Amino acid sequence: MSKFLSDKAKSIEPYTPGEQPKDKNYIKLNTNESPYPPSPYVKKVLIESNFDDLRLYPDPNVSDLKKEIAELYNVNTNNIFIGNGSDEILAFSFMAFFNRGDKIYYPNITYSFYSVYSSLFDLNEVKIPLKEDFSIDINDYKNLDSGIFIANPNAPTGLLLTLDQIEEIIINNKNNIVIIDEAYIDFAGIESAYKLTKKYDNLLVVQTFSKSRSLAGIRLGFAIGNENLIQGLKNIKYSFNSYTINRLSIIAGIEAIKDKDYFKDTVNKVINTREKTKIKLKELGFNVLDSKSNFIFISHKNVFAKDIYLKLKDKGILVRYFNSDIINNYIRVTIGTDEEMDIFVEKIQYLIKN
Amino acid sequence: MSKFLSDKAKSIEPYTPGEQPKDKNYIKLNTNESPYPPSPYVKKVLIESNFDDLRLYPDPNVSDLKKEIAELYNVNTNNIFIGNGSDEILAFSFMAFFNRGDKIYYPNITYSFYSVYSSLFDLNEVKIPLKEDFSIDINDYKNLDSGIFIANPNAPTGLLLTLDQIEEIIINNKNNIVIIDEAYIDFAGIESAYKLTKKYDNLLVVQTFSKSRSLAGIRLGFAIGNENLIQGLKNIKYSFNSYTINRLSIIAGIEAIKDKDYFKDTVNKVINTREKTKIKLKELGFNVLDSKSNFIFISHKNVFAKDIYLKLKDKGILVRYFNSDIINNYIRVTIGTDEEMDIFVEKIQYLIKN
Repeated sequence: MSKFLSDKAKSIEPYTPGEQPKDKNYIKLNTNESPYPPSPYVKKVLIESNFDDLRLYPDPNVSDLKKEIAELYNVNTNNIFIGNGSDEILAFSFMAFFNRGDKIYYPNITYSFYSVYSSLFDLNEVKIPLKEDFSIDINDYKNLDSGIFIANPNAPTGLLLTLDQIEEIIINNKNNIVIIDEAYIDFAGIESAYKLTKKYDNLLVVQTFSKSRSLAGIRLGFAIGNENLIQGLKNIKYSFNSYTINRLSIIAGIEAIKDKDYFKDTVNKVINTREKTKIKLKELGFNVLDSKSNFIFISHKNVFAKDIYLKLKDKGILVRYFNSDIINNYIRVTIGTDEEMDIFVEKIQYLIKN
Repeated sequence: MSKFLSDKAKSIEPYTPGEQPKDKNYIKLNTNESPYPPSPYVKKVLIESNFDDLRLYPDPNVSDLKKEIAELYNVNTNNIFIGNGSDEILAFSFMAFFNRGDKIYYPNITYSFYSVYSSLFDLNEVKIPLKEDFSIDINDYKNLDSGIFIANPNAPTGLLLTLDQIEEIIINNKNNIVIIDEAYIDFAGIESAYKLTKKYDNLLVVQTFSKSRSLAGIRLGFAIGNENLIQGLKNIKYSFNSYTINRLSIIAGIEAIKDKDYFKDTVNKVINTREKTKIKLKELGFNVLDSKSNFIFISHKNVFAKDIYLKLKDKGILVRYFNSDIINNYIRVTIGTDEEMDIFVEKIQYLIKN
């Protein structure tokens, strides 16, 4: 290791993103992308955009996209922060709302990037165990002494807290920031917690364009919260990188927000496919968590999850396997199209019977 | 200020990017963008790109663009790091090569974002004064006891160190990382210091697509260095945001690198316009630094720089004014097209005579 690296660059264990194979032969059910392309209007505006203007910096404040999101959620533009993917917003949140050495609370099983951020920014993470059924007991999150991150639905379980439960956590942590990571909320059949940001100054809601808006390739996320929280994120962002969102992402994002019918349609398709897949997998003897997300989290009593992952990969289907305690007998399977899930079910059926 | 903000988010003074006005009536000479559009091939590949694939995450390793840059500079792909603009790479460099509390050296007049980073990451900046003529005395940079950042050409002066001078700094700091920020090197008429990265393990060279490649709107920067340094940057990046570069930026960047003729042509046009403009301004009594960049840094004995800035803005021309000691009687003027610079010279001539 080079003597020129910082202690952090030497010691940190980075997050491992899911495989992004470059050959296209896989049925790709491993990184929770949408199986549907972005809205046709996204393509249209991109093709028609003024490419000569790419010589110019983008609007660092991303005002036009903010306006669109503000209108959709009926909030003010200064209640909105836009990031280069929701991961960037999460990273900025660790810097904006926590001092070095602060405690930070999240479930022991959740988006594993939170732990990497805690390590990167020297926070003391406190992992609160899930219940045995992998659900969150909100009583564990009352009257804590520092900030809280909760993914809702949680990842990789897909399990959902209701809005009432979220509100109970917020009410009982008036002095702590509560960050609700809603990457998958659009598949949950309940409303986003964004409305609660009007009532509570300690709530930040984070969403992404990568799942329900079919734009993982364009890198866009946003946060909604009290304007003081948004100002904190802005202070960090403008001290890190003034122009995080490029011109093409901005115009793509605007169209994705505008095309509400397409959004509803594709989200509903994913939900329907998910529910059908759940039933089929249960019939095959799988333990299927009641995911409210665009993925399912499953295990089988007879075949070890890692074997399923490897054999599926061999058969041209990529799913995600986490080699970590507690969940190491589960695989996470992104919901594809009906056709893709039919093939998936067929292959996995063959696999557990042989 | 909200009680939920970290000390840093409360206290930091962010970098102030140049104005990015949304109305198009200005002649925009304030943020060092290219006056020329990107290569027509950039437009072509963007229009023809597979927009449906935007549903998928980009390649987090940005391999295809790395290959193109590696070929151009005859280095290995693991000597290259790609960032969301060179600012992101600078930010990651502060995390990858410095521990909290470390000293960090740079000129007292240089890209002002360095100071913001030092503050964000709790480094002890040591600003080394420029000589009275705004040049860097390389003797001040020998045998230091910590890492060094040098913008070459320097900003906002535009003054250049030769490759020999850069090498002398590197040789005399074998135990310190030396980061050469070459945002403007393509306008300098000398080679990039990238070749020295093959000889020295303590050198990182950072470049951007925002100036000479006419792609400020797409957000791309890259660094070249020993693979250990690149690994350090990767460790930080993968602990911060796996997918910083989106799909469209990748394909735009590849074409921009490929179209070498267009690159040479537009860069030469900027250089020619710069030299013509220098002569005209000197004739008007301006002190014109010998900028080797795509901007010039000028002052006039009779009219205060801030007044010039304000009056030009009033007349529809945006330039950059820095209200800080030492340089507060200078304005920085990006080199536009010949036509734009003719108008600029005409307006400024009127202005200093009235």
